[in-house]
Amino acid sequence: MTAAVPFAHEVRVYWEDTDAGGVVFYANYLKYFERARTEWLRAAGFGQQQLRDEFGVQFMVLETALRHHAPARLDDTLRIGVAPLGAPRGARIAIAQDAWRGATRVCDGRIELACVDARSHEGTLRARRIPKPILEALFEAPPS
Amino acid sequence: MTAAVPFAHEVRVYWEDTDAGGVVFYANYLKYFERARTEWLRAAGFGQQQLRDEFGVQFMVLETALRHHAPARLDDTLRIGVAPLGAPRGARIAIAQDAWRGATRVCDGRIELACVDARSHEGTLRARRIPKPILEALFEAPPS
Amino acid sequence: MTAAVPFAHEVRVYWEDTDAGGVVFYANYLKYFERARTEWLRAAGFGQQQLRDEFGVQFMVLETALRHHAPARLDDTLRIGVAPLGAPRGARIAIAQDAWRGATRVCDGRIELACVDARSHEGTLRARRIPKPILEALFEAPPS
Amino acid sequence: MTAAVPFAHEVRVYWEDTDAGGVVFYANYLKYFERARTEWLRAAGFGQQQLRDEFGVQFMVLETALRHHAPARLDDTLRIGVAPLGAPRGARIAIAQDAWRGATRVCDGRIELACVDARSHEGTLRARRIPKPILEALFEAPPS
Repeated sequence: MTAAVPFAHEVRVYWEDTDAGGVVFYANYLKYFERARTEWLRAAGFGQQQLRDEFGVQFMVLETALRHHAPARLDDTLRIGVAPLGAPRGARIAIAQDAWRGATRVCDGRIELACVDARSHEGTLRARRIPKPILEALFEAPPS
Repeated sequence: MTAAVPFAHEVRVYWEDTDAGGVVFYANYLKYFERARTEWLRAAGFGQQQLRDEFGVQFMVLETALRHHAPARLDDTLRIGVAPLGAPRGARIAIAQDAWRGATRVCDGRIELACVDARSHEGTLRARRIPKPILEALFEAPPS
Repeated sequence: MTAAVPFAHEVRVYWEDTDAGGVVFYANYLKYFERARTEWLRAAGFGQQQLRDEFGVQFMVLETALRHHAPARLDDTLRIGVAPLGAPRGARIAIAQDAWRGATRVCDGRIELACVDARSHEGTLRARRIPKPILEALFEAPPS
Repeated sequence: MTAAVPFAHEVRVYWEDTDAGGVVFYANYLKYFERARTEWLRAAGFGQQQLRDEFGVQFMVLETALRHHAPARLDDTLRIGVAPLGAPRGARIAIAQDAWRGATRVCDGRIELACVDARSHEGTLRARRIPKPILEALFEAPPS
């Protein structure tokens, strides 16, 4: 058994993020969620470019499911959460994410990713096991 | 009983749509899907600005769920489908969408929307029944 | 002497393009301008991916200068113009572009590009002469 | 005579920022530059929403001119500079901006803005003098 290490990252809402409704354009939560996942990996010691150069892998998004509960506006600070849903199964990992403005949860969702060969985009998709150093850094070792 | 009118809209993949993996950035499918829904409404006679000005409503995205099956690349032409999932219930409507590159389905998903007051973003969310002319244009009248 | 072949491409304003001011976010005109340049090249027989695969080149943006004259809104159709400013000098080409909503010019600008090796991003920038077939297709042959 | 207060803001390059060339998509520097201007205003005590609500104004971009000198990549940290070019003339203000990756200047440019009525987008453009508290906060008072 392993327990995932939770994480949070703050983002600011800028003009670029809003739409004519005066609120954050819903698709942009996928960007916020990804920034938080990237910082979660970085906090564990792994950069996106390093994943590609050193391990030859990247995480590809397979599925996203988002629910929007409240609007966010210009200048809002949003706290983006990252919490893996259980341990990875082979190449796949599921992550629960949410966005909070103070005590209001404005959005939450679930992102499913696959670890793939970093050159997968040039041809067919090649799944790769998540490299062990990454697994060990992201998931707490169980007491034995 | 009513049957939804299906619809398709073509989009082209440009540099702006791609990411460093060489493929369409996954969040951009939400943009493609929305363009197709907008054109579906326009084909039925309703523009987005007109919805706000004439009917005082707009469609707000409540939930999105996407699955990515294959990558798309620069210059690809994608055919985006729009197919309502049953008749609307009050203010809510669910829509099945997908993206095809030739005979390959690269992405599919489900978008759930609510018809809300066009000034909802200024305060609390106010659901509104979908205006009857829109309903009649989007959903075929049953034979009686 | 050669004369450039002018070109125009239509784009539609969608929710994704707008900001909380209710108008098209100014940075998005760079996207519209690039879509039009891509279609201008395509009309001449050259796709972006083909440039990379067949000729081993891509056009990299060196400079952009935009002036915004009027706002554009949801549902607007914009006509984007492409007009090369003189013949290319070696690897460089300058293009005048503008965006029209009916008889109103909402934006105009000047984009300067360089033809570079398609793998330039991996290291230092390597300028390449614009391949002759592309030059001949984009610039009318002079009467001789 | 007044002297502008310079400012710098750090941004991180994420997947959303890149394109199929493996580098930051050039239009995104306009987003980085705006984030930095927003933080410059915030550091002086003024939020974007506050400008609209309290002063009834917003800054509209009139002109942008960017030059790209070097590519930026995934994970890069960019330091974005903000330096007003002289004092505002009535409603207009010109700002020099640049993006640095370590000691490499990857992009620089000039942004010209106008202070306009926050409801200008609904009709014609109405220029407004920059409110005095904002001027005083952004431009050092001269020794007298």
